[in-house]
Amino acid sequence: MAENVAIAPPGAFERIALIGLGLIGSSIARAARQFDAAAKIAALDASPEVLARVRELGIADEASDDPAVALRGADLVILCVPVGVCGEVARQIAPFLEPAAILSDVGSVKASVVAQVAPHVPQGVQFIPAHPVAGTEYSGPDAGFATLFQNRWCILTPPEGVDAHAIARLAAFWTRLGANVETMSAGHHDLVLAVTSHLPHLIAYNIVGTAADLEEVTQSEVIKFSASGFRDFTRIAASDPTMWRDIFLNNKDAVLEMLGRFDEDLTALQRMIRRGDGDGLFALFTRTRAIRGAIIEQGQDTAAPDFGRRDGGKG
Amino acid sequence: MAENVAIAPPGAFERIALIGLGLIGSSIARAARQFDAAAKIAALDASPEVLARVRELGIADEASDDPAVALRGADLVILCVPVGVCGEVARQIAPFLEPAAILSDVGSVKASVVAQVAPHVPQGVQFIPAHPVAGTEYSGPDAGFATLFQNRWCILTPPEGVDAHAIARLAAFWTRLGANVETMSAGHHDLVLAVTSHLPHLIAYNIVGTAADLEEVTQSEVIKFSASGFRDFTRIAASDPTMWRDIFLNNKDAVLEMLGRFDEDLTALQRMIRRGDGDGLFALFTRTRAIRGAIIEQGQDTAAPDFGRRDGGKG
Repeated sequence: MAENVAIAPPGAFERIALIGLGLIGSSIARAARQFDAAAKIAALDASPEVLARVRELGIADEASDDPAVALRGADLVILCVPVGVCGEVARQIAPFLEPAAILSDVGSVKASVVAQVAPHVPQGVQFIPAHPVAGTEYSGPDAGFATLFQNRWCILTPPEGVDAHAIARLAAFWTRLGANVETMSAGHHDLVLAVTSHLPHLIAYNIVGTAADLEEVTQSEVIKFSASGFRDFTRIAASDPTMWRDIFLNNKDAVLEMLGRFDEDLTALQRMIRRGDGDGLFALFTRTRAIRGAIIEQGQDTAAPDFGRRDGGKG
Repeated sequence: MAENVAIAPPGAFERIALIGLGLIGSSIARAARQFDAAAKIAALDASPEVLARVRELGIADEASDDPAVALRGADLVILCVPVGVCGEVARQIAPFLEPAAILSDVGSVKASVVAQVAPHVPQGVQFIPAHPVAGTEYSGPDAGFATLFQNRWCILTPPEGVDAHAIARLAAFWTRLGANVETMSAGHHDLVLAVTSHLPHLIAYNIVGTAADLEEVTQSEVIKFSASGFRDFTRIAASDPTMWRDIFLNNKDAVLEMLGRFDEDLTALQRMIRRGDGDGLFALFTRTRAIRGAIIEQGQDTAAPDFGRRDGGKG
């Protein structure tokens, strides 16, 4: 039992430096403090407005726009910036990384992040890409909250040759923040997320755009009668435009592949409707219903009607 | 002020007969009682199980499988059955309608309902199709609740020649149940709902089907990582298969028209991704974000992050 007497509890770091204090970065800051996962929390952001807000919220011990200041003594550094700029940010901070630091990220795409960041990682620094599969449709330091990662998955995609102890430390950190940790290759991650996240967002953005452009039905009618289904898609389609532009540009192949499947299936469904194939429709609609049941059973969504929306719950 | 001394308050009926006690029928029963919109509530259903449950729940004053019993003395009769069977049900109940009764329905498609039901409506009976734009992904008499219609819209599509007083009475009934009432033609209704409801459901059913059929990504992975977007679609894709089969078969032209628009837009979006048109993606994603704001502003959805899901709210 002697191992348990260590000063830092398992999964806790001496000093974490968070780069980019948006929804995810600010949630990590809050969660790290609440769940005692870091002795010190440093925030690094290029935006004076974000830094001012971080100071007002008091969610970090230090807030700076200088990597030399923020990264000094940091044994864990996490890039929390849109995937389109992570290579450039990695290049800028690389000279200031401590020799044995763990460098990680939270990007929704992994192969592209590895390609962008890896060339800048100094010898000795352990680079372990990560993706906490959690979020809301809101952005910025005010949108974060400490329990965002509870019962969500965090996927690590450690490249070959990374120190096993460093992987275990990072996994323990995310476990402390409430997440379940899974490890897979960057390529497989990008395929899985293309289905579970990128394609759904693409479809949502598309249908909201389609509805906004109609001439026969006014935009005010679309808004008025949105509770009949449409409004569900608008939540996802309200997600951060920069983040999502970058995701689609950086996971192009997997997204286009999944979109191709979706499109084939949609053509088949269209054909069923045109031909009046009621049995085919009924069979599909029964099959899809079962998947919802499994998601609820595994604690990945609420069983409350209408997501437990105030206006749709049992009143 | 003498009008206000009438025995029945405005919007209240002597006896309403609800045909089909699923989510909507049982919600009308509960709401009519809670908001004092009917002196007596009669339930008519062909299923012994449903009738037994209605009696256990005590949500109607009478529950019967005999239209002669249920419709006797009813001044308002509402068909709450899937749109595919409303013609047949109308044929069966027609002989038992009181001479001056109002006959209405709750179907999500209107032109087809009119075509099916109108031929069976006896002279003198006022047939006013209606569509309360409200629901959850659950079905059956247990799924209903009294506040389902609060701040939702109820669309009336009265055919030409219907008595204006009857329209006003039905509108007042739905107002008592908490709904806002709007009037439009059956054809326009079907176009509006094709965009706001039918297309979203079609897309949701399709993407859930696509995700379930992949080989590279397992179904267990899809479920595990569903919180990244996919799970939102599974709620809608868990809706009642019979109801939705009937909607697509009975609003074929409008659905196929809207699907055509959606598909064109999706092709354009696919092209933007393939060509790496970041500005085009950013512009679309910014535009769609604004529509969410308008929906929240008009009280048609919650502003709480992640629909206020227990697991996604500020903890």
